[in-house]
Amino acid sequence: MDVTKIKDPAFLKNLSKEEMVELSQDIRDFLIENLSATGGHIGPNLGVVELTLALHKHFDSPKDKFLWDVGHQSYVHKILTGRGDKFDTLRQFKGLCGFPKMNESEHDVWETGHSSTSLSAAMGMAIARDIKGDSNYVVPIIGDGALTGGMALEALNHIGHEKKDMIVVLNDNEMSIAPNVGALHSVLGRMRTAGKYNKAKDDLEYILKKIPAVGGKLATTAERVKDSLKYLLVSGMFFEELGFTYLGPVDGHNFDELDENIRFAKKTKGPVLLHVITKKGKGFHPAENDKVGTWHGTGPYKIDTGDLIKSAVKGPAWSALVSETVRKSARTDERIVAITPAMPVGSKLEGFASEFPDRMFDVGIAEQHATTLAAGLATQKMKPFLAIYSTFLQRAYDQVVHDICRQNLNVFIGIDRAGLVGADGETHQGVFDIAFLRSLPNMVVMMPKDENEGQHMVHTALTYDDGPIAMRYPRGNGSGVEMDEELSALPIGSWEVLREGSDAAILTFGTTIPMALNAADKLAKSGLSVKVVNARFIKPLDEAMMMDLLKLNMPLLTIEEAVLQGGFGSAVLEFAHDAGFGHATIERMGIPDQFIEHGSVGKLLEEINLTESRAVELIQSMVPAKEKRA
Amino acid sequence: MDVTKIKDPAFLKNLSKEEMVELSQDIRDFLIENLSATGGHIGPNLGVVELTLALHKHFDSPKDKFLWDVGHQSYVHKILTGRGDKFDTLRQFKGLCGFPKMNESEHDVWETGHSSTSLSAAMGMAIARDIKGDSNYVVPIIGDGALTGGMALEALNHIGHEKKDMIVVLNDNEMSIAPNVGALHSVLGRMRTAGKYNKAKDDLEYILKKIPAVGGKLATTAERVKDSLKYLLVSGMFFEELGFTYLGPVDGHNFDELDENIRFAKKTKGPVLLHVITKKGKGFHPAENDKVGTWHGTGPYKIDTGDLIKSAVKGPAWSALVSETVRKSARTDERIVAITPAMPVGSKLEGFASEFPDRMFDVGIAEQHATTLAAGLATQKMKPFLAIYSTFLQRAYDQVVHDICRQNLNVFIGIDRAGLVGADGETHQGVFDIAFLRSLPNMVVMMPKDENEGQHMVHTALTYDDGPIAMRYPRGNGSGVEMDEELSALPIGSWEVLREGSDAAILTFGTTIPMALNAADKLAKSGLSVKVVNARFIKPLDEAMMMDLLKLNMPLLTIEEAVLQGGFGSAVLEFAHDAGFGHATIERMGIPDQFIEHGSVGKLLEEINLTESRAVELIQSMVPAKEKRA
Repeated sequence: MDVTKIKDPAFLKNLSKEEMVELSQDIRDFLIENLSATGGHIGPNLGVVELTLALHKHFDSPKDKFLWDVGHQSYVHKILTGRGDKFDTLRQFKGLCGFPKMNESEHDVWETGHSSTSLSAAMGMAIARDIKGDSNYVVPIIGDGALTGGMALEALNHIGHEKKDMIVVLNDNEMSIAPNVGALHSVLGRMRTAGKYNKAKDDLEYILKKIPAVGGKLATTAERVKDSLKYLLVSGMFFEELGFTYLGPVDGHNFDELDENIRFAKKTKGPVLLHVITKKGKGFHPAENDKVGTWHGTGPYKIDTGDLIKSAVKGPAWSALVSETVRKSARTDERIVAITPAMPVGSKLEGFASEFPDRMFDVGIAEQHATTLAAGLATQKMKPFLAIYSTFLQRAYDQVVHDICRQNLNVFIGIDRAGLVGADGETHQGVFDIAFLRSLPNMVVMMPKDENEGQHMVHTALTYDDGPIAMRYPRGNGSGVEMDEELSALPIGSWEVLREGSDAAILTFGTTIPMALNAADKLAKSGLSVKVVNARFIKPLDEAMMMDLLKLNMPLLTIEEAVLQGGFGSAVLEFAHDAGFGHATIERMGIPDQFIEHGSVGKLLEEINLTESRAVELIQSMVPAKEKRA
Repeated sequence: MDVTKIKDPAFLKNLSKEEMVELSQDIRDFLIENLSATGGHIGPNLGVVELTLALHKHFDSPKDKFLWDVGHQSYVHKILTGRGDKFDTLRQFKGLCGFPKMNESEHDVWETGHSSTSLSAAMGMAIARDIKGDSNYVVPIIGDGALTGGMALEALNHIGHEKKDMIVVLNDNEMSIAPNVGALHSVLGRMRTAGKYNKAKDDLEYILKKIPAVGGKLATTAERVKDSLKYLLVSGMFFEELGFTYLGPVDGHNFDELDENIRFAKKTKGPVLLHVITKKGKGFHPAENDKVGTWHGTGPYKIDTGDLIKSAVKGPAWSALVSETVRKSARTDERIVAITPAMPVGSKLEGFASEFPDRMFDVGIAEQHATTLAAGLATQKMKPFLAIYSTFLQRAYDQVVHDICRQNLNVFIGIDRAGLVGADGETHQGVFDIAFLRSLPNMVVMMPKDENEGQHMVHTALTYDDGPIAMRYPRGNGSGVEMDEELSALPIGSWEVLREGSDAAILTFGTTIPMALNAADKLAKSGLSVKVVNARFIKPLDEAMMMDLLKLNMPLLTIEEAVLQGGFGSAVLEFAHDAGFGHATIERMGIPDQFIEHGSVGKLLEEINLTESRAVELIQSMVPAKEKRA
């Protein structure tokens, strides 16, 4: 069928199994075809086609609540709820969001993007339902990777305790973004081979039935033994221990098994954990055979060959530049250890991992643990490199404050995907880190202008022994500048003048430097001489250069691809006022007080007026002010 | 013995059991006596006397690493490591810290104050040890309450996976700060009655031995059954499932049991979980019989009667004011639900809990879950009140960003213990919340001048339906002002002029208002007329009043008991510059870029020059500047 014509999931109730199977194939074909043009999270969505169909068949969304943990696997749900016709706009500006979005559909009852939130939210919905006396199902769908996030474990603890009715669907594909790690993963692995346990259970019951034949004394203890052992012998006893009724494991691509178990779950009181085994990338050969996570989310690709269509890039990927520079340093500095919370591929740490397997730790989706693990290592004079996306570092804010900054430990935080990230949208924009890190004592925060400065900055961080140091770097690739052979450390808090000028100065760093240089070029044509400063240290500022600029009474424009509230520009204002130059003419450009949706970074920057022409305008408006005062 | 004479724990190695028992009594007497004068965490420390002695006897600190989770139970450790003579200065300015502190002793290898960090840090230390080829024990001591914190669970997952040598001591006293909650707590409860399981295990083994007598077929399956069941039948199978060797439960007040099990743990490869049952408050009748958590941490008390010596207070405790106002509103507004992460006593929610048991949720130490639970409730048009200490809200920063602010949900966050808290010191000072909340879109942040405004502010928050709203309130009590009968909502973003003036204005809120009024009084005597504004909305600012002040070209002084970087003063600077008044004379007073240690709030404010006399000085320095310009 033409899946773009689906308006509502109600029609599923009348489909036969054969029709469901056929529809699954249609949806797979549609996803493989459409995502080959737009890119997107192909692997996770191909894995949940049957599961999503079965859920929408047996439940009544939106009365019943589906919460898609992380949310990148909600495409099938979007198709079934009337959004198939918008897939050509997927992840594009003003187009369909790659994650659940309340303003797209009443069927999206919880928005996600970060991992492990669904169980807590589902608990809130279950409590609300019971207080209001409503009757509806609450169905969080969570992956085995997301389950290792601390907040999901906190929620399991509370849900098991409160015993509210809830059906937790554990979508177990044995890998989250990269192959999964951790003891819980081993627990799930044992459950997957549950046949063994069920056999053991059968055997035991047979033995217990035979016991009266063994002797009278044993017969009396048999019942007690049976009681004690009962819940230990089901395959999901880990969850049973926590107060859940465990169902499964179920083949997530088999409608008969799904139907039977969902029906049973609906009849069960209290919290249920329905363990569903799925295959990521199911039905698309390249994605199905992915062992490392390449097909978790991709750009456009060729359907026939499975080749990814790479856009032309000039320089190395930023993640690779940083991780490979760390790797080189690790050859001579044995203190260096790398840590990633489930992002070995995204953070390009595969090389480091293969060269230093004993000094590389992928801790799974566990940002808090990753961060304090780094702190623990630093107490022992190791030099941990914590590679973490800006937006995921938010999960470890307290660990940065309480464990790293407060104890002033030598942790190198590589803040990947800093600034706008584009297609992943508002949950992934790395725009808060400056505001939340700059207010912390002992913290150094920097961002390089290009990949060559980037490698020197990595060296700076790895040789800095006075406390925590963070380096921000954007999503994407460098510009292909020439790379120095020898690495040297930058003086902490040192800025660099990129272009001299006498009428005004632009202070900026990282991705917005080209914008500043272009604006200065334009302004030069209208007779204004604008200095451009690479303000590569966001904390501490280059106080000497700041004083020079202030003494010259030069109008200053700060530009940052980060929130304005409490950001870099705010630090410049604070410094000017504290230094007795409160009257200085200072304007700030950056991200306004709103969440920024998905779209290409260029489009987004235009939308928020963070552009070269705005910089030109502001400088022009400031310079006369300066001349009047002079 | 005189425990203040102890310099080093080495002498314990030669003590007999009788001498250990005697020393335990001496330490208890010392703690009960000393803390009666200074106050402190009496309950937790009385519970770990024997455990701490046994640990220091069997391990070699500081070569072997003790990590005291949360850390308020480290007093006995402090006594044994040569700090008994400083207990008269406990929790006082420049005195002994109430938590582990590296600069006090080489035996404090990890600083704590927030819960659940010890396992991650211990893992870092174990990894560092193995990379370096050292041999030492790493021994985190964690309570059953702290174990429910998400980051501890993340760490368990990683530790069980990596199989590093580590001895986790689970100090299980069945209550953390308040009686413990959660499914994990039930798991521990079942372990405590482990006799049952061990009996079941014995029974089973007996049965299995008898099986050949039952029939040949069964004999062949017996071994397989035995293998499958083996690890299910130990009492700590929950931990065994996660890859730990489980030992216990052990009576934490019995040296024979402690000795035997610690010796065994030391010989065991891989991660060990040593489950120790202790009694909080052991040996001091009032603390031992505490059922709610009153004796977790106290001020001074009378030893003979167990009466707490209350200092004279004028108004209600801030926590009580807020929680009781919420409780009153909950009588007519059924949407209201209260949530606390393990602080029902501290947040004074006992009244709410007893009146609305079905609308009150103590989720245990689980700030992340608590926050997203509130978000989930808000999606269903409930009105959750999340009572949380400022410093613990740091744990839920991402949940505030991603789940509450991004979805613009109507959650009322009661930020308790905002500002300096005094004796608990740097881990507990609530000074970052303005910086980290102000930069988030959709957030409203406010702080009342007194308890009457406080109750109106609670009403404001509970009737606000346009998104998240946070109210900060300090530790301690109100000033005893008259309370209005009727509650009314404050207009969002409205400030209040407390005192008129024409030469300068002070903008401040909450606890620093008296300082501002006193400064204005002093300045009046020297002929300066100073306006004082109750800037009760920190976000959004009162833009109309700001414009009026800026247009009058009045020098402005901002005062806040919070970090200056990105704080309220910074918001005022941003506004002035954005509104075209960049030349305005603005000075900021607040907490400088450093962590603030323990001591009375008055002492601390003096130390950082956040004082009335500094305000006077600054206003005096600003006013001439204004006159020159005028």
